[in-house]
Amino acid sequence: MIIYPSEYLKDFTAELFQCMGCPEDQARTAADCLNQADLRGVDSHGVARLSGYVRLWELKRLNASPEMKIIHETPSTAVLDGDLGLGLVTAPFAMKLAIEKAKIAGTGWVAVQNSNHYGIAGYHAMMALEHDMIGISMTNASPLVAPTFSKSRFLGTNPIAVAIPALTEPPFVIDMATTTVANGKLEVLQRKGMDAPLGWTQDKDGNPTTDAYSLKKGGSMLPLGGDREHGGHKGYCLGAMVDIFSAVLSGANYGPWVPPFVSFLEPPANQVGKGIGHFLGAIRVDAFRPATGFKEDMDNWIKTFRNAETSTGQERVLIPGDPERELTFERMKNGIPLHEQVVADLLELSLKFGLKFIVNPDKIQSK
Amino acid sequence: MIIYPSEYLKDFTAELFQCMGCPEDQARTAADCLNQADLRGVDSHGVARLSGYVRLWELKRLNASPEMKIIHETPSTAVLDGDLGLGLVTAPFAMKLAIEKAKIAGTGWVAVQNSNHYGIAGYHAMMALEHDMIGISMTNASPLVAPTFSKSRFLGTNPIAVAIPALTEPPFVIDMATTTVANGKLEVLQRKGMDAPLGWTQDKDGNPTTDAYSLKKGGSMLPLGGDREHGGHKGYCLGAMVDIFSAVLSGANYGPWVPPFVSFLEPPANQVGKGIGHFLGAIRVDAFRPATGFKEDMDNWIKTFRNAETSTGQERVLIPGDPERELTFERMKNGIPLHEQVVADLLELSLKFGLKFIVNPDKIQSK
Repeated sequence: MIIYPSEYLKDFTAELFQCMGCPEDQARTAADCLNQADLRGVDSHGVARLSGYVRLWELKRLNASPEMKIIHETPSTAVLDGDLGLGLVTAPFAMKLAIEKAKIAGTGWVAVQNSNHYGIAGYHAMMALEHDMIGISMTNASPLVAPTFSKSRFLGTNPIAVAIPALTEPPFVIDMATTTVANGKLEVLQRKGMDAPLGWTQDKDGNPTTDAYSLKKGGSMLPLGGDREHGGHKGYCLGAMVDIFSAVLSGANYGPWVPPFVSFLEPPANQVGKGIGHFLGAIRVDAFRPATGFKEDMDNWIKTFRNAETSTGQERVLIPGDPERELTFERMKNGIPLHEQVVADLLELSLKFGLKFIVNPDKIQSK
Repeated sequence: MIIYPSEYLKDFTAELFQCMGCPEDQARTAADCLNQADLRGVDSHGVARLSGYVRLWELKRLNASPEMKIIHETPSTAVLDGDLGLGLVTAPFAMKLAIEKAKIAGTGWVAVQNSNHYGIAGYHAMMALEHDMIGISMTNASPLVAPTFSKSRFLGTNPIAVAIPALTEPPFVIDMATTTVANGKLEVLQRKGMDAPLGWTQDKDGNPTTDAYSLKKGGSMLPLGGDREHGGHKGYCLGAMVDIFSAVLSGANYGPWVPPFVSFLEPPANQVGKGIGHFLGAIRVDAFRPATGFKEDMDNWIKTFRNAETSTGQERVLIPGDPERELTFERMKNGIPLHEQVVADLLELSLKFGLKFIVNPDKIQSK
């Protein structure tokens, strides 16, 4: 692993998006979104993914300077056509719109069609916090997950994020795929030569498997819960709900028609909508009760759960958002570790666009 | 099992609620809600629960003739004080309000405080369907579930329901506890003398167990996913979100303070809010896109997923709501099977209130 200062990577990312043709403000937002993924420990959604966005742009499957349009709205809702832009740009735009609607109507809900991968779901949800609002964010994604009783890859990892403000405690932040685990966890096991626990994936015939390579052999990921006996049908329900909210409400592609993120796979023929879809929501806390009282109760909720009795052998009980916030603090201070392959990818990108990229981060001057 | 005609049980339930002092329309709504639980196969939430409501009413922990009040509202939100009424009454009232708000603002969201157990979550969500709206329903509940890494019973089974209309296909209806399984499944295993799968519950020290009686021995239910390795922290996130939406937004009791449904347990001291809480939502489909286009896409979504390839040994792939709808059809035709103990409970209730109850359903005259 090679450790880079967070700010260096963020600036490089913003410059690179500008080289693709992104307007500066959009490039900065997109870079911030990838940077937050790296800081929060979702390494698969940080700069490691930059080359993937570039490849989609080269294939004209991604528009770096989209003209986003609101194509329908009511006091508390809107549909945004993302003009095939980066989800890293269209989703924050949609979330801002949801926040503006919530200021007047109490809540705001924006469905996005014609978009692309939007990074970590939590980034967009957390935008609501500074407005004393609850933020909600979900997206559909490349199909890798099988419905219960099926071996067809019909759903993405379809994440849900919910960010809720507190007063003196840090905010409560859920950011979870609706599968048992994210794909990145399988790659970790592959590198270590280890098997996966039952309930993570199934083989190409839909049988239980512990093969960490099962996905690469035509298998599929399992919805949260795993098999039917362990509640996997509930994970299927959640993933399906995310797909419908993100894509059927917005007019994007759903289910098996969702265009893949990887450039070596063609989008399925006979598209049923436009691009991929997101769904963003903002709930003004004081549309229900005064914000201070709510946030005091959130403080009490958080303290109560943090002080729950631990199970035998466990050190502490966590609040959603704790691990990511602690890692952010650590990585802001000590830097972001990148795999050699990711550094090589970034170097290649820098050469492609004529940008400077320092391969030995010890030589980076702090600003 | 003794099999009763559905309508007979519904009429008896409505009469009984009226004997408690419920106004007739509220009694009919409450009876319909319990009846739908019986028809849909959620037997624990049907007439089997009637005696539980009566015991709470006798203890004055439930108000049969509540004066419900809207205590705060914006164009798309409201908070309802349920005046300690039946959740079977306050939740439909709140859902109607959400639907009215959605007609004007696009969406409507109502948080309910000072309520009681509201039956099956799906009943309230499904009220939105006939208005071409998506319905959402959640509630907190008696604490039986431990957060990940904890042995404290701090959350209820905290269900989420989402009902989405289709055109020619039946609606898509999720109605799920945010635990691996509902408590009723453990009781089935107890009756059969069988062990539970790992991941359903833990013992009083927070260790994994297959003991179907673990809950009765001080153990706790596990959130959807089970242990950390199988994604149980995500189920914890979902249960926590339901608790916060239902109770912290509304001003009801949350976490370990939620008053228990069972009458032999006292509500915890130092209540942090009023009663238990619900959260209901209605999303007008054409606040996003014309309803017909949306519903045609839902038909396509449903047909596509129903035709997904089955895993080895599986007969078919289900759409959320399929099993409950099929059972409703069967039970409307053939009747609702009740345990002897439930029949005995109903007989006892009938004697208490001087109502007629026929113990041998063969003698029931069809209307």
